[in-house]
Amino acid sequence: MLKEKSLLMIPGPTPIPPQVVAAMTQPMINHRGEVFVSLFKEVSTSLQRLFRTEQPVYVFPGAGSGGWEAALVNTLEPGEIVLIVTIGDFGDRWVKVAGALGYTVERLTYEPGQAAQPADLAERLAANPAIRAVAFQHNETSTGVTNDVRALAATAREYGALVLVDSVSGLGALPLEMDAWGLDVVLTGAQKALMCPPGLSVIAFSERARERAFACKTPRFFWDIKAAHNGYLKHQTPYTPAVTEWYALQAALRLIEAEGVENGWKRHALMGAMARAGVKAMGLQLLATDEAYASNSVTAVVAPIEPKILRKVARDGFGVQLAGGQAKLEATIFRIGHLGYVTPNDVILALAATEMALAKAGYPVEVGAGVKAAMQVWLENA
Amino acid sequence: MLKEKSLLMIPGPTPIPPQVVAAMTQPMINHRGEVFVSLFKEVSTSLQRLFRTEQPVYVFPGAGSGGWEAALVNTLEPGEIVLIVTIGDFGDRWVKVAGALGYTVERLTYEPGQAAQPADLAERLAANPAIRAVAFQHNETSTGVTNDVRALAATAREYGALVLVDSVSGLGALPLEMDAWGLDVVLTGAQKALMCPPGLSVIAFSERARERAFACKTPRFFWDIKAAHNGYLKHQTPYTPAVTEWYALQAALRLIEAEGVENGWKRHALMGAMARAGVKAMGLQLLATDEAYASNSVTAVVAPIEPKILRKVARDGFGVQLAGGQAKLEATIFRIGHLGYVTPNDVILALAATEMALAKAGYPVEVGAGVKAAMQVWLENA
Repeated sequence: MLKEKSLLMIPGPTPIPPQVVAAMTQPMINHRGEVFVSLFKEVSTSLQRLFRTEQPVYVFPGAGSGGWEAALVNTLEPGEIVLIVTIGDFGDRWVKVAGALGYTVERLTYEPGQAAQPADLAERLAANPAIRAVAFQHNETSTGVTNDVRALAATAREYGALVLVDSVSGLGALPLEMDAWGLDVVLTGAQKALMCPPGLSVIAFSERARERAFACKTPRFFWDIKAAHNGYLKHQTPYTPAVTEWYALQAALRLIEAEGVENGWKRHALMGAMARAGVKAMGLQLLATDEAYASNSVTAVVAPIEPKILRKVARDGFGVQLAGGQAKLEATIFRIGHLGYVTPNDVILALAATEMALAKAGYPVEVGAGVKAAMQVWLENA
Repeated sequence: MLKEKSLLMIPGPTPIPPQVVAAMTQPMINHRGEVFVSLFKEVSTSLQRLFRTEQPVYVFPGAGSGGWEAALVNTLEPGEIVLIVTIGDFGDRWVKVAGALGYTVERLTYEPGQAAQPADLAERLAANPAIRAVAFQHNETSTGVTNDVRALAATAREYGALVLVDSVSGLGALPLEMDAWGLDVVLTGAQKALMCPPGLSVIAFSERARERAFACKTPRFFWDIKAAHNGYLKHQTPYTPAVTEWYALQAALRLIEAEGVENGWKRHALMGAMARAGVKAMGLQLLATDEAYASNSVTAVVAPIEPKILRKVARDGFGVQLAGGQAKLEATIFRIGHLGYVTPNDVILALAATEMALAKAGYPVEVGAGVKAAMQVWLENA
């Protein structure tokens, strides 16, 4: 019944506000004309406020994965060493990207559910002073764990390494202060807390990272920050921008500014707390080994039944799309995405669907217990 | 936070599916051209399936209230008597319309919460054989009570009276069989279970009612069914149709047909049962005196606190818009609308918001009890 009204509770792509949909119905424009320049200016300054940076934020047609490449090819010379901290599947993927690009990769790897520890990072950096950059996820979407970006960045800087941060499922949802925390590259995509359809790669470089980019000899074209920056100075992009996505981003950023960036963080913190309270009240276990690092944009849960069955019943029977696990976690976890154009009410429905799907599948769950716990968390914060 | 994502749970206007929104972005067309003729044909035949009639269904730019006028001025000569059965505010309004138009009105009135009884109707018709038509609501939106249309219609026909039915908050949500039940006029609006924006009055006439319309001497122009019918035969409207609303209606009817009319009735029955179970589990009282007549499109509840406060907290604090009471019920009830583009998940959220708003306002409610009861009803029917 009304299957197309199914609630999308995966950690991206996330639901799109009607204002963003409406923005995308605007007629096409000359991407080298005055209208685009004005769009460029508004979006760029709004992104700076969101990234918490005085530096330019570049918008590429692409995806988060393109940001990984841009971060590397603009800051590292061929053959240089990057230490990639991986706490899950997206960390592993960044390792593959760096390898494909010919860089020497060191890995600092954690078990799924764990967050990276600055002490481990310091040890690795002390052992190899040739490491030029440290790369890690702000929020590991595959495990529902948030790294302590500030502490990791401080450690990396102590050893003179550049700090490359993938904040695809973090930026806009979780606190991040690019300039104050000394981050060199911060990248995200359009389809997470930015509430837009997929199709954009959004990247900011610190001043020293940009200087490195201007000097860097690594062969590159599409992801060249030098070209992006030279275009930026003229309020232009180096090649055809995804105009309609820019309109979407403009509309989304207006909503984000209307809510207030900090209020957005608070909303996501509330949703994370509700999801965790609900899951625990159902007697289920979080994948995050230490709840202090549990993500406020996606909650990963150890599945008490085959996750594919749970998700199918939740979707077909109760109208909520939950996410599965990735890679080696495919058979063991499910995830509740709660970032972007999502409210505490959506978390209630995700928990209700989880409970009803478990009950329907014969798993002994006290129907209503998780929802009740989440409602209580909301009430305490309302 | 994200106030514009507030869930609209009032008994109309109801939420609009994205497919309907998209349909309304189509370019304007010549309303006398071939494209409109094809739109007219599709919408008309689909409406016949929804009204369960072989007779034409006429679409006017207007509102449900216009249907009241159309029903009267086309079937009653000046000065003739209509018996209006009123079980709430919308019945009272139809009485006023009939009075304004100069008809002689008899009233059969019930207390709010009660449904009309065929025996009472028979008594009134027996007492006055001059009554030409009986008019009543299929579903009284103001009290959340559904009349037994079939039984009332059978009684009216027994006494030779025309049967005029306002199904504004019924059609598409609650079972109605225009031809099989012998209904003479059935009217609705676009903004209820038809899932469109307000702006249309949709009306069907039985063959005998249409014959009456062709003979009727009551002065009329806009609501003249003779003109509408003559246009209908040429797949046209007598004056400019609301083209974009027709596109919306086309998209909505496609969704209705995709779900299946009976499946839509079942969905509304489930939502009604969930709402009632939830409300009772909270210890609250339905306005409907006999639950057998409680509406599956809107649930009216005796408010345990000032309804304005309850609704304000539910809306501002918990993102759900509940409806208040109308006219003399304003200070005593609140209503949960659950018709149209609404799912059982939306009912869960309406109940959650009600519970949290009551708790927040200091009323002793066991938070989660109502939601749990509703989830159990869904599970039993899933």
